[in-house]
Amino acid sequence: MAIEAERPSPGLAQSDPLDEALQETFPASDPVAIGHSEHAGTPPGHASAPIEWFDDLVLGMRFRSPAMRVTAEDIKRFAAEFDPQPYHLDEEAAAQTPLKGLAASGWHTAAIAMRLMSEARPFGPHPLLGIGVDELRWLAPVRPGDTLHLEGELIELIPSRTKPQGIARVRWMAFNQRGEPVYSVIPLAIVPRRAA
Amino acid sequence: MAIEAERPSPGLAQSDPLDEALQETFPASDPVAIGHSEHAGTPPGHASAPIEWFDDLVLGMRFRSPAMRVTAEDIKRFAAEFDPQPYHLDEEAAAQTPLKGLAASGWHTAAIAMRLMSEARPFGPHPLLGIGVDELRWLAPVRPGDTLHLEGELIELIPSRTKPQGIARVRWMAFNQRGEPVYSVIPLAIVPRRAA
Repeated sequence: MAIEAERPSPGLAQSDPLDEALQETFPASDPVAIGHSEHAGTPPGHASAPIEWFDDLVLGMRFRSPAMRVTAEDIKRFAAEFDPQPYHLDEEAAAQTPLKGLAASGWHTAAIAMRLMSEARPFGPHPLLGIGVDELRWLAPVRPGDTLHLEGELIELIPSRTKPQGIARVRWMAFNQRGEPVYSVIPLAIVPRRAA
Repeated sequence: MAIEAERPSPGLAQSDPLDEALQETFPASDPVAIGHSEHAGTPPGHASAPIEWFDDLVLGMRFRSPAMRVTAEDIKRFAAEFDPQPYHLDEEAAAQTPLKGLAASGWHTAAIAMRLMSEARPFGPHPLLGIGVDELRWLAPVRPGDTLHLEGELIELIPSRTKPQGIARVRWMAFNQRGEPVYSVIPLAIVPRRAA
């Protein structure tokens, strides 16, 4: 299955710096996801097939993660180490803030989302790397007892001009058990191309 | 000291959505930093003064955090919970990857940076909220034994049209003990205005 690589739109001036990043000797960054895809669906007109290489990816492809529950214990433990503020450490103190009750640190939510991405396995079995993320947003508080899952859509494919790989941009959204969006993020994942 | 609010440049079309975000009833998000500023310096021509309100902030203002050391134990513990991949869990497995040795999860680095931001106290004593971050990038691996600190520069001030607050965008960069940049991020922090 061939990729119909869309030309980056004029608004996406990031493509060049990203490609420069790909050209660097060291692909600095964080792995994003490994394993065979369990993607939730492909766009109309595209056949479903195992995802392994950059070449297998198609714009509009959708992914879905398993779910994970967050406890008050988890929230306070993460906050004590990384984000020691009243919103995240203590029910009574949190009740007096605009968050009106205990809520997870936004960075705790981001870390949980990383775990769920790795379990969603949107790409192939290769250990992958990401160079960063864009447009990370916290949309609603994550409360003790909430169960989160992720849904993702492949929104951009940027082939490297110099290396047998590309960057895949997936817009991921985390939802709670009531279907409310609580978090969104667009990681920039490096995915290798199939050998010619 | 009055703010000379610069008009957002044409490239920053984000200003309007951000202001819309400010108008929402619930300021969804993550606190960014509290406490009196220990800022490292103000730009030439501006008097140094305690930072407390949005009105006290000046473009170009710089901040610096204390330092924090990361251990192999920390790296593996974080990864086991949130990012269970060979780069972060096991020295020998990590040596076989492009990272060429154990390195912290990028989300671990991001969480450490949150801790350092809260200790840098770039804004006033109010408990603050952030709506998200832009342009998060992992620039080099964070290794066991590395000591990180943050340096920040205030790059944009976006007053709300409807509420007594604004969004402050600080470009933070994390450096290791050799002065190498390892991480950068631009949080969008909500800062209240001084009562008229």
